[in-house]
Amino acid sequence: MYEIEVFDMSHVFTDVPGGVTAPKGFRASGVHCGIRKNTEKKDLALIVADCECAAAAVYTTNLVQAAPIAVTRRHLLNGRARAILANSGNANACAADGEENALRVCAAAAKELNIPAEDIIVNSTGVIGQRLPIERIEAAMPELAAALDAGHGGADAAARAIMTTDTVKKEIAVTFELGGVNVTLGAIAKGSGMVRPNMATVLVFFTTDCAVSPGLLNDALSDAVKVSLNRVSVDGDTSTNDMAAILASGMAGNKLIGAKNGDYEIFRAALTHTATRLAKELARDGEGATKLVVCRVSGADDEQTAERLSMSVTSSSLVKAAMFGADANWGREMCAMGYAGARFDPSRVSISFSSGNGEVAVCQNGCGLDFDEDKAKLVLSGKEILIDISIGRGTASAETYGCDLTYDYVRINGEYRS
Amino acid sequence: MYEIEVFDMSHVFTDVPGGVTAPKGFRASGVHCGIRKNTEKKDLALIVADCECAAAAVYTTNLVQAAPIAVTRRHLLNGRARAILANSGNANACAADGEENALRVCAAAAKELNIPAEDIIVNSTGVIGQRLPIERIEAAMPELAAALDAGHGGADAAARAIMTTDTVKKEIAVTFELGGVNVTLGAIAKGSGMVRPNMATVLVFFTTDCAVSPGLLNDALSDAVKVSLNRVSVDGDTSTNDMAAILASGMAGNKLIGAKNGDYEIFRAALTHTATRLAKELARDGEGATKLVVCRVSGADDEQTAERLSMSVTSSSLVKAAMFGADANWGREMCAMGYAGARFDPSRVSISFSSGNGEVAVCQNGCGLDFDEDKAKLVLSGKEILIDISIGRGTASAETYGCDLTYDYVRINGEYRS
Repeated sequence: MYEIEVFDMSHVFTDVPGGVTAPKGFRASGVHCGIRKNTEKKDLALIVADCECAAAAVYTTNLVQAAPIAVTRRHLLNGRARAILANSGNANACAADGEENALRVCAAAAKELNIPAEDIIVNSTGVIGQRLPIERIEAAMPELAAALDAGHGGADAAARAIMTTDTVKKEIAVTFELGGVNVTLGAIAKGSGMVRPNMATVLVFFTTDCAVSPGLLNDALSDAVKVSLNRVSVDGDTSTNDMAAILASGMAGNKLIGAKNGDYEIFRAALTHTATRLAKELARDGEGATKLVVCRVSGADDEQTAERLSMSVTSSSLVKAAMFGADANWGREMCAMGYAGARFDPSRVSISFSSGNGEVAVCQNGCGLDFDEDKAKLVLSGKEILIDISIGRGTASAETYGCDLTYDYVRINGEYRS
Repeated sequence: MYEIEVFDMSHVFTDVPGGVTAPKGFRASGVHCGIRKNTEKKDLALIVADCECAAAAVYTTNLVQAAPIAVTRRHLLNGRARAILANSGNANACAADGEENALRVCAAAAKELNIPAEDIIVNSTGVIGQRLPIERIEAAMPELAAALDAGHGGADAAARAIMTTDTVKKEIAVTFELGGVNVTLGAIAKGSGMVRPNMATVLVFFTTDCAVSPGLLNDALSDAVKVSLNRVSVDGDTSTNDMAAILASGMAGNKLIGAKNGDYEIFRAALTHTATRLAKELARDGEGATKLVVCRVSGADDEQTAERLSMSVTSSSLVKAAMFGADANWGREMCAMGYAGARFDPSRVSISFSSGNGEVAVCQNGCGLDFDEDKAKLVLSGKEILIDISIGRGTASAETYGCDLTYDYVRINGEYRS
């Protein structure tokens, strides 16, 4: 299940503005409905398609799942949907009347949009254990619907409305060609803390005008998430609310993707490309983070081994604190691989660090190299660090995405609810 | 393997001074040999028995194991030893000439003590990946041997010499009766960061004058460590050097424990009692910690489930940061249990927090309770927090030991090697 071939086709994807409204057939909006105290902070987001869409989603693996996850699962059984609705500031998890309130959110939007409630993907993100202020959400629904906008303003508002402790908006859109037809894929994402493989407190909503069958849409999304969003770690906590969902309007006019053919591969590569870029943005904006840390493990017999070793390094508090301190204490990488639960021969491990400031090799064949500490400090003072590890066996590799552990992570999470 | 019955027999163990030299037949010492730059900091510790001892040890589960671990494993194949030698400041892991240097340490001590090198338990703790300064250790050996002391001064020096980022010395000794004979058990420990189940960067050295066969000594140590030292988490990083070792001189004069009888149960309970107290001390003195956090999960069908859920809570960065901020954000406990990989029904979970400042119930049957936020803040401002979780099924329970995540953890680990 891990042997997903990823072709580097970045060159065929062209960035375009517009976020989730860049593809044909989508409008979006975001408003402040009063879940968040700060009236400047939008807390309710809506994305609506002009027609019924093929739809798919992947969910958190946490055993404790927020109420809207259960509702969305049921709504997507037929592989079809029209809208995505999400609030921030309250997770609607472990909360009174959770499922009832998730259904009421859908009903309110359905009435306003004149679509079936079962065509709505719903989610929440924020504090666990507090009752969703459903009345405020219901009251804001007319304003949210009225604000729907096919221009970039709508996508921007929706992207901002799902932010929690995020410090920057995460939005992306790319266009590419399928059989001579231009297809566009857009996405917004949020996620900052409680971020760890298996979807973390990450919400990612994709829209596309690609014509693709629901089953293949689901396969492409699952594959893309596995090698991107599931390889992000900020703090090792997998949340109760994570979801990546996609709506495909089919309005680009490409030939419907109904089999795993060349068009499917290009579409899947586009999803993987955007999801990977969002994964890096999520890690870079991890709570309190000052830098993006990418760990690449190569020379493995299989991708699963490489992924597990890499994820263990990216998730280690000690590695993350050393990255914050720009300390080339590579024994921590070695140690984190040692408890990853994957097999490798320590005596064949080589490690180097690199960034925009250069590269420094610190370990070869399992033993420390003499290296220039000043240079290592300079390299690790970069804003984007690559920890490059070879375990000296096969040809498989994997990259995972993390960040440093800082004073601000502690501050943010010591006072989150305040 | 997890169903270890633990009888509460704390009342039969009486604290005595003396640490590892409290039992009959032991001398100890600690000196500064020059591994650490600070000449005030002792960095070489020795414990020597007056006679050959039954001996046992448990080791880190990290795949990357320091060189002295391999040497000690070989030396303990016969279940016998005379001495324990450990340095701080350098882990002798992933380092040039690692095993050769571990053997040279043993040879130098053997010569000075006039005992076989194979009777020495050796370990190192400190930075990974740097060559052990063996010449300094060899040069200091006569001074270390000359300083051996059967009084408390020797035990104190040894306890201090194994400290790394520890802020307080960890030492304990208890006496109890076996068949009308007074038996004494002493221990020293170090461990502060890179601390996580499966022995972490924890060194614990026990001495006892109990007469017990090597096989049963090994069983009792393994059982005791499972429910104590293996239930400590400071940062989720399992180190390459962890070890708990015990020497039993037999000089108390009790009837040799050669079967799993009543005497064995008492001896095992004594080991569990001391190891659990040390586990709490290690957690309380976790790097940067301001408080001890104990998580008790009860109402489980089996102890393994309770342990896994509890450990996930104690290890969660988000829980730990909330504990630092005295924030009763119990959704984080729920979330951490949800990704623990153990089965439970969220709708049967109840959670309360308590400390010397009182108790506050925050969740019942999976939903939030209305609670007094000021009181919760007061409770969580205590120095020893109990997170009490019931999952409402069976009668099994487990406690694990952790601490809060603080600015100082980040500071200490951002500049560790400096």
